[in-house]
Amino acid sequence: MDCFHKKVMGLQTIFANQVKTIFNDQSVFDEWESSLGSGRTGYCEGTLMEKAGFNVSFIQGNALPPAATAFRDELACQPYKAVGLSAILHPYNPKIPTAHMNIRRFEVLRSSGEPIIWFGGGFDLTPYFPIKKQVINWHVKTKEFLDKYDKRLYSCWKKDCDDYFYLKHRQESRGVGGIFFDDFLMTDLNQTTELVLGVAELFIDLYFDICSSNKSLFFTSTEKDFQLWRRGRYVEFNLLQDRGTLFGLQSRGRTESILISLPPTTKWIYKGEERFEHFNRLLQHYLKPKDWIKMQESAFN
Amino acid sequence: MDCFHKKVMGLQTIFANQVKTIFNDQSVFDEWESSLGSGRTGYCEGTLMEKAGFNVSFIQGNALPPAATAFRDELACQPYKAVGLSAILHPYNPKIPTAHMNIRRFEVLRSSGEPIIWFGGGFDLTPYFPIKKQVINWHVKTKEFLDKYDKRLYSCWKKDCDDYFYLKHRQESRGVGGIFFDDFLMTDLNQTTELVLGVAELFIDLYFDICSSNKSLFFTSTEKDFQLWRRGRYVEFNLLQDRGTLFGLQSRGRTESILISLPPTTKWIYKGEERFEHFNRLLQHYLKPKDWIKMQESAFN
Repeated sequence: MDCFHKKVMGLQTIFANQVKTIFNDQSVFDEWESSLGSGRTGYCEGTLMEKAGFNVSFIQGNALPPAATAFRDELACQPYKAVGLSAILHPYNPKIPTAHMNIRRFEVLRSSGEPIIWFGGGFDLTPYFPIKKQVINWHVKTKEFLDKYDKRLYSCWKKDCDDYFYLKHRQESRGVGGIFFDDFLMTDLNQTTELVLGVAELFIDLYFDICSSNKSLFFTSTEKDFQLWRRGRYVEFNLLQDRGTLFGLQSRGRTESILISLPPTTKWIYKGEERFEHFNRLLQHYLKPKDWIKMQESAFN
Repeated sequence: MDCFHKKVMGLQTIFANQVKTIFNDQSVFDEWESSLGSGRTGYCEGTLMEKAGFNVSFIQGNALPPAATAFRDELACQPYKAVGLSAILHPYNPKIPTAHMNIRRFEVLRSSGEPIIWFGGGFDLTPYFPIKKQVINWHVKTKEFLDKYDKRLYSCWKKDCDDYFYLKHRQESRGVGGIFFDDFLMTDLNQTTELVLGVAELFIDLYFDICSSNKSLFFTSTEKDFQLWRRGRYVEFNLLQDRGTLFGLQSRGRTESILISLPPTTKWIYKGEERFEHFNRLLQHYLKPKDWIKMQESAFN
């Protein structure tokens, strides 16, 4: 187990600790091995944290599945190793957003025999009842963090996140976005590793701050139903479009760990968009890509 | 509107009437038009029939989506017309199976300008607490019906159904099967049309008989939870594998009509297979392809 692998396991433990501290719900860790690799799946099925999953996986194979690289076609079917951490959180209270984070490192042997390393990852926020200043802060803090490394990263990765988490068949974004990156490597490998681990740490800070702020907010049964209906969209995205999910299933990964991202409970309601008055506000103001940084500036002007 | 189109609309009405008669739940009809075509979606969100959808659609386009034909690659991207009826029923009581039926007629213009017609369709049954004699009857009656046309059809279409409704990532069948056919045309077009409409009528007879028999069966909250968990598998199949769903979304069909197949409520539970004692019986005795006709014969020996 190398340093990156150890660090992501440490981060996995921090996730479970935060869920315990803020929601008082216990997580369970489940170690597994398969023909492709090994991993540890942490999960919580609690009262206030209705469902959360934290996966660390280490896999290797003789043929990189095509879904693993969008940009490097020549590497498809080459031998590979991958280490990843992913986290997905579905709180019970609809006033707390659902959130997702993933970081991963790939190492692939070129046909010339030379190894190539790259990183991928990102995070995104899916509020049901968004609070504008929280959404702005989510983006502002992310930009501040990335600007320390390279001022071009935020706008590029923010756009990639908006493009990626867009449900084509619904013509709506999954949520208010965040960042998404792939095939990433700066000239300095150590600095790249630090940035990528920093993305996970930043997510932990930002997301659990929102959880602390919102966890006591009151909600009605209609608001709960609205969340259950919107969670259906989350399922649709993950099973119809998500490359991470399809990569996992294509590479014959451990199904229970891959599909831990699916919400604990859902409702599919015919033409829900016409039935919930909350939907129009969400769609008009939040489910379309926006320049949140500019909104912060204008808030002070 | 030609004769086949009229007949499938009549069948759609019969579905709604049966739901009203047996479950006392009302269906609503929703007519729609889009750039590709038109249709009528019937749906029921009732007390005993928790959710049902009955779609009739008529679409035409300049380029047949690849998902529409598995066997006729040369027809992909040719101009086409399609009329279809699909029905999906999710009763509240877990002792009543979920069921699905679909019939469709395609008409495609070959590049030579000559039209080609074919039919597809089928039905399958997804019980949560199967009753053996009902499953045997489901298959025996289907074989009897098809044998009137051609004695080779049942065994071929039954196998295709088993192959089609198999969840690769779970290594389990969706249910106890039925029949599945595609690219089907007998020498006599009228007889083919009669057979295909007969498939839908047979489904109505067989399925609503099971509903009548089982609708008063008692169930526990654990049995209800088992159904909610198994419904997650239904979602996984429809969004990850189902060609009909993918065809609909690829051809920019009406999303709400296509995804009406998704269950009203679901639960994803981590490692549910280890938590529900009911699962083992279901998996061992029902979620693997079986020769149900032979089981009937042996029951009498």
